[in-house]
Amino acid sequence: MRNLSFVDATSLTVGKIADLAAAQLRRGTRRSHVITGVAPLDEAGPSDLTFCEDSKHTTALRSTRAGACFMLRRFGSQAPDSVNALYVRAPHRAFVTIMYELYPAVLSSGTGSEVNTISSNASPHSTAAIGKDVAIHSGAVIGPEAKIGNGTVICANVVIGARVRIGRNCVIGASSSITHSLIGNRVIVHAGSCIGHDSFGYVRAPRGHLKVPHIGRVVVNDDVEIGAGTTISRGTITDTVIGEGTKIDSQVHIGHNVRIGRFCAIAAQCGFAGSVEIRDFVQIAGQVGIADRITIGEGAIIGPKSLVITHIPAGERWQGNPAMPGQRFFRCMAILRRSAASPVRTVR
Amino acid sequence: MRNLSFVDATSLTVGKIADLAAAQLRRGTRRSHVITGVAPLDEAGPSDLTFCEDSKHTTALRSTRAGACFMLRRFGSQAPDSVNALYVRAPHRAFVTIMYELYPAVLSSGTGSEVNTISSNASPHSTAAIGKDVAIHSGAVIGPEAKIGNGTVICANVVIGARVRIGRNCVIGASSSITHSLIGNRVIVHAGSCIGHDSFGYVRAPRGHLKVPHIGRVVVNDDVEIGAGTTISRGTITDTVIGEGTKIDSQVHIGHNVRIGRFCAIAAQCGFAGSVEIRDFVQIAGQVGIADRITIGEGAIIGPKSLVITHIPAGERWQGNPAMPGQRFFRCMAILRRSAASPVRTVR
Amino acid sequence: MRNLSFVDATSLTVGKIADLAAAQLRRGTRRSHVITGVAPLDEAGPSDLTFCEDSKHTTALRSTRAGACFMLRRFGSQAPDSVNALYVRAPHRAFVTIMYELYPAVLSSGTGSEVNTISSNASPHSTAAIGKDVAIHSGAVIGPEAKIGNGTVICANVVIGARVRIGRNCVIGASSSITHSLIGNRVIVHAGSCIGHDSFGYVRAPRGHLKVPHIGRVVVNDDVEIGAGTTISRGTITDTVIGEGTKIDSQVHIGHNVRIGRFCAIAAQCGFAGSVEIRDFVQIAGQVGIADRITIGEGAIIGPKSLVITHIPAGERWQGNPAMPGQRFFRCMAILRRSAASPVRTVR
Repeated sequence: MRNLSFVDATSLTVGKIADLAAAQLRRGTRRSHVITGVAPLDEAGPSDLTFCEDSKHTTALRSTRAGACFMLRRFGSQAPDSVNALYVRAPHRAFVTIMYELYPAVLSSGTGSEVNTISSNASPHSTAAIGKDVAIHSGAVIGPEAKIGNGTVICANVVIGARVRIGRNCVIGASSSITHSLIGNRVIVHAGSCIGHDSFGYVRAPRGHLKVPHIGRVVVNDDVEIGAGTTISRGTITDTVIGEGTKIDSQVHIGHNVRIGRFCAIAAQCGFAGSVEIRDFVQIAGQVGIADRITIGEGAIIGPKSLVITHIPAGERWQGNPAMPGQRFFRCMAILRRSAASPVRTVR
Repeated sequence: MRNLSFVDATSLTVGKIADLAAAQLRRGTRRSHVITGVAPLDEAGPSDLTFCEDSKHTTALRSTRAGACFMLRRFGSQAPDSVNALYVRAPHRAFVTIMYELYPAVLSSGTGSEVNTISSNASPHSTAAIGKDVAIHSGAVIGPEAKIGNGTVICANVVIGARVRIGRNCVIGASSSITHSLIGNRVIVHAGSCIGHDSFGYVRAPRGHLKVPHIGRVVVNDDVEIGAGTTISRGTITDTVIGEGTKIDSQVHIGHNVRIGRFCAIAAQCGFAGSVEIRDFVQIAGQVGIADRITIGEGAIIGPKSLVITHIPAGERWQGNPAMPGQRFFRCMAILRRSAASPVRTVR
Repeated sequence: MRNLSFVDATSLTVGKIADLAAAQLRRGTRRSHVITGVAPLDEAGPSDLTFCEDSKHTTALRSTRAGACFMLRRFGSQAPDSVNALYVRAPHRAFVTIMYELYPAVLSSGTGSEVNTISSNASPHSTAAIGKDVAIHSGAVIGPEAKIGNGTVICANVVIGARVRIGRNCVIGASSSITHSLIGNRVIVHAGSCIGHDSFGYVRAPRGHLKVPHIGRVVVNDDVEIGAGTTISRGTITDTVIGEGTKIDSQVHIGHNVRIGRFCAIAAQCGFAGSVEIRDFVQIAGQVGIADRITIGEGAIIGPKSLVITHIPAGERWQGNPAMPGQRFFRCMAILRRSAASPVRTVR
């Protein structure tokens, strides 16, 4: 694909790719053609795999030089003859599945600074329990009585605090710190994240603010991914909990005692004040703020840059500052827009 | 409290707790009952202390299994007989006061990776002046001529730049960096914070932006707490100053030359552009943005997600984007909401 | 200037300063007067240089004790006789130009923890290619096959991943991490930034979210400056690109495949979702959010705290949540404000 690549690819024949993805082949597709990389439609060359899922991209499809392309069957007539066309129902998902085959090291690459070894420049405490096939890169610090599960990668300059438990097959990105926490299996934490510090809690006292001590933990369940620069505070006298399979983007702030359910998706730069409760399958767009003690019902969807100051019922879609049901929000916006465009400016 | 805890508790009798908090005892309270931990009302067991301050929590109070509970006297009749009820005027504050007694190490735990020693894996420069009872954890770097006051804890992988001064009894959290700064006593800086870097300053020049060099410092006064992932820029040709006792939450951005007064509280993800001035006792909710050179008067309160582009007088409560006096903001919101709910959609 | 300074100054005569800035001298200005520092108008003393560009500052000008002052000619009559007045058309730019002369080390100071050496506590991999006059401070980790160009400073506890290339005369701030990236010349990355991690990309799958592997890079071109705590994700199957001379403030989040043009200015805490395209010379104020796949035209200006969900044409000024052309935004705000002030509250 490029003259400088950070991930080594294997190669696969078109036939093997079709078999792995249960794809149907356009007439004339050559099963023996060899694929050694991936690229977008407009950058792909004869040895690259690509995909076309959306009719917005059929212009690019018509001129692609890709060696193979996953697509919906109805786009088949628009792909050049040189393309080995592979028909599937979910082209992007099929493409992602094949990426894992082509780039087997892609998820464990971390900083790529070392592999499958404990660096002589790392500092695991003598009482830490390190599993099998663990990599600990230079400068990483592992505190006393910490446990690191089999197959986990601790990248350079990471800090793992005393008694922290990290599960199996995790990747903890460069320079992140994890203290006072229990981390499940297959958890990915990206660079520069902080998990397990105290958060913002005070009681009023005669001489200013009296700090609330924190004795709670952060509990991160299996298959969670946490973005770069995200901060997750430990609980005060209970725990902060992130549910199984939930994905959190970069620079998200999660306050003390917050409980996030399973399979949620939380986009970048959201902020959750103390004791917020997010139920399962909730989707939250970027830069949303949620006030303390608010509950978001199962499957709710919150639009970008919203400020949530009331509970949101299950399954609803809300947006705005302050957030309101989505239809009402868009009506408000339409009213304002029309008012601003109208020659009469006074509003009563 | 739990099978895996990050903080070691001592124990106290109910009588001792009552004495320390100047509490009155409900009839039947056993002074000799032993307390070894704390928990919320609904999680507490017979050896735990808890508290009930708000009538919202009396349902939980009626079924709590706690061994002792601080509460307002008027809730006394609702606590089960098994609870040793302790009457005080400020239950949460009393509870926090006792937490410090039960968990004497809670504030200095840092990453807990080492205590009261200078790690052989730390790199204090030979010209740095390190006080008594200082802990410097693995991977921490202390620059030349830096000074670290007595009793301060420098957590793992922290960077303290040349000539920086840190006062007494501070805790500097894992992986944070402090350069070009003077830090007072009893200051807490949480993980991943950056203090003392250059900020965003340019003058227009024929070939793009010419960087404004920064020669100012960051001055952090006594008893300040700074959250995880917060960034505080050094001044350009004057200083950036944080006043005594001010508390700053996670992921706050403070630009060059900003001056924040004493005993302010600033919630997560706020951003202050260059030369903003915040007077004493100001409270700012989360995700607020303040434009450059704006002044916020003493004791003002700013609501969440506000954008402040005009000065705010002392003692006022403002909110909105752009921010306006709170009453006007809520009227605006009510008008919009009613318009959207009305069958007639045109607004004149 | 102060009793504790982090930057060593040289000294210059007023005459030399005037020559360097092509300034004209007010009658009576002493070319032999010696300047050894800089300060704002109200803090400057007889050996300090200052500047006055704006009529808002003429009150401070009338009482300044500065030894020399760049100013517009029309302010000349308002400066005390003790001030050596230097007339230029762009006082702030002239002042900045002289700062580089007075403080020659100001840009390379980094953490100041070491200079021009590779610390014995750093961990450069044996296969890394380190240029001439490179400084690598304590705790920095340089991965295998990484390249560091001549004159670059790698501050304490930085992580540079495998195969990363950093150009000449860069400064990489303390505790930042750079992986899967190509960095140009004269690039400044401030403390705690993360460049090159995976971002938030998933496809729906039968069992929750299937992670999209990332094989793209981050390409940062010459003369870019990146603020503290900023996170820039690598591309998925193409690159994330930051154009020449673009300046990015603190805590900005840049998602995968984003392309930012040349000479843009992006203020603190902005967030760009995946595949956003920003053309050249765009200016974006603080806390702006831009939705995925949005294009911002050349020279557009976006006001603070805006949410951009539609393409913005070249040269336009937009603001608001959601963003709209600036004039319409301010009309909307005026309408709302007037409505709220009116005695009749119902709006139809």
